[in-house]
Amino acid sequence: MTSYTAIHLIARPGAEPVGPQLFEVVKKELPKAGAGEFVIKQTHMSMDPAMLGWMSPDTESYIPPVELGSVMRSSGYGEVVESNHPDFAVGDRVMGMLGWQEYALSTGAGINKIDAAIPAEMALSVFGLPGLTASQGFYNIGQPKAGETIVVSGAAGSVGVMVGQMAKAEGLTVIGIAGGKEKCEWLVNEFGFDAAIDYKADDIDAKLAEVAPQGVDIFFENTGGAAQIPVFNRMNAHGRIVVCGLIADYTTATPAAGPSWLNVIKKRLTIQGFTMPDHLHNAAELAGKFAPHVQAGKIQYRAHVLEGLESAMTGLNLFLTGGNKGKLLVKL
Amino acid sequence: MTSYTAIHLIARPGAEPVGPQLFEVVKKELPKAGAGEFVIKQTHMSMDPAMLGWMSPDTESYIPPVELGSVMRSSGYGEVVESNHPDFAVGDRVMGMLGWQEYALSTGAGINKIDAAIPAEMALSVFGLPGLTASQGFYNIGQPKAGETIVVSGAAGSVGVMVGQMAKAEGLTVIGIAGGKEKCEWLVNEFGFDAAIDYKADDIDAKLAEVAPQGVDIFFENTGGAAQIPVFNRMNAHGRIVVCGLIADYTTATPAAGPSWLNVIKKRLTIQGFTMPDHLHNAAELAGKFAPHVQAGKIQYRAHVLEGLESAMTGLNLFLTGGNKGKLLVKL
Repeated sequence: MTSYTAIHLIARPGAEPVGPQLFEVVKKELPKAGAGEFVIKQTHMSMDPAMLGWMSPDTESYIPPVELGSVMRSSGYGEVVESNHPDFAVGDRVMGMLGWQEYALSTGAGINKIDAAIPAEMALSVFGLPGLTASQGFYNIGQPKAGETIVVSGAAGSVGVMVGQMAKAEGLTVIGIAGGKEKCEWLVNEFGFDAAIDYKADDIDAKLAEVAPQGVDIFFENTGGAAQIPVFNRMNAHGRIVVCGLIADYTTATPAAGPSWLNVIKKRLTIQGFTMPDHLHNAAELAGKFAPHVQAGKIQYRAHVLEGLESAMTGLNLFLTGGNKGKLLVKL
Repeated sequence: MTSYTAIHLIARPGAEPVGPQLFEVVKKELPKAGAGEFVIKQTHMSMDPAMLGWMSPDTESYIPPVELGSVMRSSGYGEVVESNHPDFAVGDRVMGMLGWQEYALSTGAGINKIDAAIPAEMALSVFGLPGLTASQGFYNIGQPKAGETIVVSGAAGSVGVMVGQMAKAEGLTVIGIAGGKEKCEWLVNEFGFDAAIDYKADDIDAKLAEVAPQGVDIFFENTGGAAQIPVFNRMNAHGRIVVCGLIADYTTATPAAGPSWLNVIKKRLTIQGFTMPDHLHNAAELAGKFAPHVQAGKIQYRAHVLEGLESAMTGLNLFLTGGNKGKLLVKL
């Protein structure tokens, strides 16, 4: 074999809906490892809501948008198949920003080795971006204390289930917000959440009053949308709001307004946003915070696996419809 | 003399406009100091925008509203005129929450002694609530670094001028927002601000682009209103927003919406609110942060003095019209 398949971004969402028309499938010549380089054969790609931001033309974003005509950005899992690098040997399993392509040439920058005993799906779902993101937001920004109450929006998403399980393991009361009865049932039955609110069917405000009568100490915001103001309005004094994702606003021209800052004063709230490129150098420390809970069997995951590189192009839409049932992955 | 004058709050603003009709002037019998007590003759009252919040019926506020039929709450400066307390002697100058009244009976709780060499107007303008509030917000939340740019709204207010002068003393570029040409001129000419924006006359967005081409690192928000979104939109990555006051929203039934949290993520912003009752136990530490700048002559103040206890009832309106020209005080 001398060629492989990659997918380039060729147009930006907005004018065009998110779908295959934004992409071009290309054939490329298989890379050869030069001095200090190695070749990774990617076996699993991680699909994350942040991709929608990376595709947008916004030059103010925290990392530059994917350039048109270049490989779409993504993290993934693979195996080293050729190496001239002292730290990476053929057969090593690795994770990193591999992009939408079957093979990647690397100098090792941003690539982490991972124990081959950890299945690829678990590696990407738990120790990859979702777990690291959850750890940074929950532990470092949320500053949780046992006995507090946390509300997680996008709770059935890859970050949301990790946050909720970390919070349960730390002794918090955990309330998830998700779309649809099925997801709400998983949250309680599979992931151990104390309660779940279906934002599509429930009266969010009334349900919050019922399941969080003591108010909310931490709000882990993954989605934006209809739940933001009701949760904000139930924050307790000295509450922390971790702003991790606003999927409801990523592809709209005019994002919804936020809440008045009046309660920020009255309740002495802290609202803090973060993005993972600032924190990936702390990956080991972030993973270390929840690794004991994984070992203790307290962290489950659920993968939604698409088959074949090209399925990524339509798979992105699942973030907009909420149609993914677990951590979205593409198996190559 | 056996009686003194006090002013009670008898109605809440909202239905009624802010003014004398909310108050009742009463005569009371002069207090006698019992065991462990002392009597303070108040000479100067501090008028602060927070009073408008204390008058409102909102039970969610950070401190309980002033009860109808009781003395209106305020901080003030006075002299001990009778004492059975071991730590307070006749002639001592003190500051504390003395209320709208000529005399106050105290056990010492919440009362601080102050050097008699410091004029009362300076004590209330610099070392009283304005300075302590500025110090908590600017130093502890703002986390300033020399070379950064700060924007202060309500800059000509009692807290605003303190924040701006602390920031200049710490080597920041300081931009104030105030209402009217006269206040903007003071900010630059008397208080050393690098630039001032007149929110009533200037195109806030265009002027910000001109005076803060490098973006904004700290936004000290004292007012809410028209400047909030333009300043928010110019925040730099890792910017800090200190939410100290929202006078524009205190007396409206429906506060204005805040900005979308999209930039909270993209720019990794922190928005934090605070109120001084949480921090008054740190008053000495907070004053210590800026005391060297006072000693070095870097902290000026400007007092707007009303004459006579009853002038407080109409004086409150100056916060709503922006008519006060300096720290608002009432001389008894």
